[in-house]
Amino acid sequence: MYSFATTRRVLYGETDQMGFLYYGNYGLYYEMGRNEAIRNLGISYKELEAMGIIMPVVELHAKYLRPAKYDDLITIKTSVLALDADNKISFYCELFNEQNKLLNSSTTQLVFFDTQLKNTVSMPSILINKLAPFFNNDK
Amino acid sequence: MYSFATTRRVLYGETDQMGFLYYGNYGLYYEMGRNEAIRNLGISYKELEAMGIIMPVVELHAKYLRPAKYDDLITIKTSVLALDADNKISFYCELFNEQNKLLNSSTTQLVFFDTQLKNTVSMPSILINKLAPFFNNDK
Amino acid sequence: MYSFATTRRVLYGETDQMGFLYYGNYGLYYEMGRNEAIRNLGISYKELEAMGIIMPVVELHAKYLRPAKYDDLITIKTSVLALDADNKISFYCELFNEQNKLLNSSTTQLVFFDTQLKNTVSMPSILINKLAPFFNNDK
Amino acid sequence: MYSFATTRRVLYGETDQMGFLYYGNYGLYYEMGRNEAIRNLGISYKELEAMGIIMPVVELHAKYLRPAKYDDLITIKTSVLALDADNKISFYCELFNEQNKLLNSSTTQLVFFDTQLKNTVSMPSILINKLAPFFNNDK
Repeated sequence: MYSFATTRRVLYGETDQMGFLYYGNYGLYYEMGRNEAIRNLGISYKELEAMGIIMPVVELHAKYLRPAKYDDLITIKTSVLALDADNKISFYCELFNEQNKLLNSSTTQLVFFDTQLKNTVSMPSILINKLAPFFNNDK
Repeated sequence: MYSFATTRRVLYGETDQMGFLYYGNYGLYYEMGRNEAIRNLGISYKELEAMGIIMPVVELHAKYLRPAKYDDLITIKTSVLALDADNKISFYCELFNEQNKLLNSSTTQLVFFDTQLKNTVSMPSILINKLAPFFNNDK
Repeated sequence: MYSFATTRRVLYGETDQMGFLYYGNYGLYYEMGRNEAIRNLGISYKELEAMGIIMPVVELHAKYLRPAKYDDLITIKTSVLALDADNKISFYCELFNEQNKLLNSSTTQLVFFDTQLKNTVSMPSILINKLAPFFNNDK
Repeated sequence: MYSFATTRRVLYGETDQMGFLYYGNYGLYYEMGRNEAIRNLGISYKELEAMGIIMPVVELHAKYLRPAKYDDLITIKTSVLALDADNKISFYCELFNEQNKLLNSSTTQLVFFDTQLKNTVSMPSILINKLAPFFNNDK
């Protein structure tokens, strides 16, 4: 498996009148986690897109265990647990607060879509090559 | 079961550079669906909150089937499929475009939390009374 | 001058822990006001964009007079007070609550940008023709 | 004057279908700038709020000079140019891209509001004491 952690601080504008990070704003945290996890492999999502590959989200499953609050410094731990078959990739994301309490976990599944072919495609080889080394031991 | 439909038009600011409604912005659509479904029962979420009941989201499961695009007039169909046991309620939400194509479906589970008791509680009787008639035939 | 009013209800996710509509979320309200004001003229911003004209915002000036709160039904009154010279258009926007109290006023200035010419251009004639009748009496 | 700089990377979900950071999302960047500028003084906005002082925004004036794009690493430079009289504070904010091009400038004015007195109040002495040293030379 491949994992990478980054941090992000909860903004006032991301809370709601309950005083918690609004459930609908977690998608931005998951996205940031994915962006930085991919960047850490040596390629950016922006570069993939420049190659004509976009990655729309097709499924999201999130569990909200404890509230995140304003100004909390959240650790976003993003993992690729397995290389999906076909033309999809799944990211497992865990959010922790400064006391290292697990606040939220989610799985987000995205497809690889070729903007020229206008169809889903397999994971680009450039990304496979970056990820494969983390999964060799799993065989 | 209880269902209610409302509409909402996709704003430019809700799209992303893919030209689609960003996956992280659907939470606002689901929320709007819940707000209006509850209001249609004759009570508002705002009134529940004034009674000391808040309803944090504890789980979200969303499937993105087709993209929603800028200026699409989305029909948000929100249903309570069953009365959950305990202190939770689940909303099933379907989003349709103007061609009546299903774009997205989701299930959002919320808990009832009493801000004075600082604990989860059963569904408030005022809400049970409003919802129960829709489930009598299910028995 | 040309004016048009539409309504929008404040979502929970748009409030912050102060219990007010977050100052950074008003941009969506102004955008909705502009969208509907233009649509009411018989053309949509989406159609303008399909003709190759995009309208980036170049300046925003907003005054927050009274807070908007969760579930408030906001009336968004959008006006074009004058036809700007050159390649810009300004929208004056006022937000009112259900007690008809003025909550917020803003002026947003946008430019017309031709995506093929990659340059700013004059207001498209299709939009001039729709707006001009409202300003004839001003002469 | 007092200045502090921090950085933030543009998320996909913050762009719009023009491919630019949506004008309505800049408020979050300005807020982050203010949060970190205050924190760098040795007190956080969260702590001020815990003392019963909230700071609603009363005016925003923003100029959008160049677009910010997905994945741009934005430098947010936040300055307090002068100590306002009365019960307000203004932050001047400049956003730069990685080529050090100025993308956006804004002035945001906030009031100090005491949640117990339910009234605007002067700048809390704890904040005055932190800021004053930066303005002594201005006299």
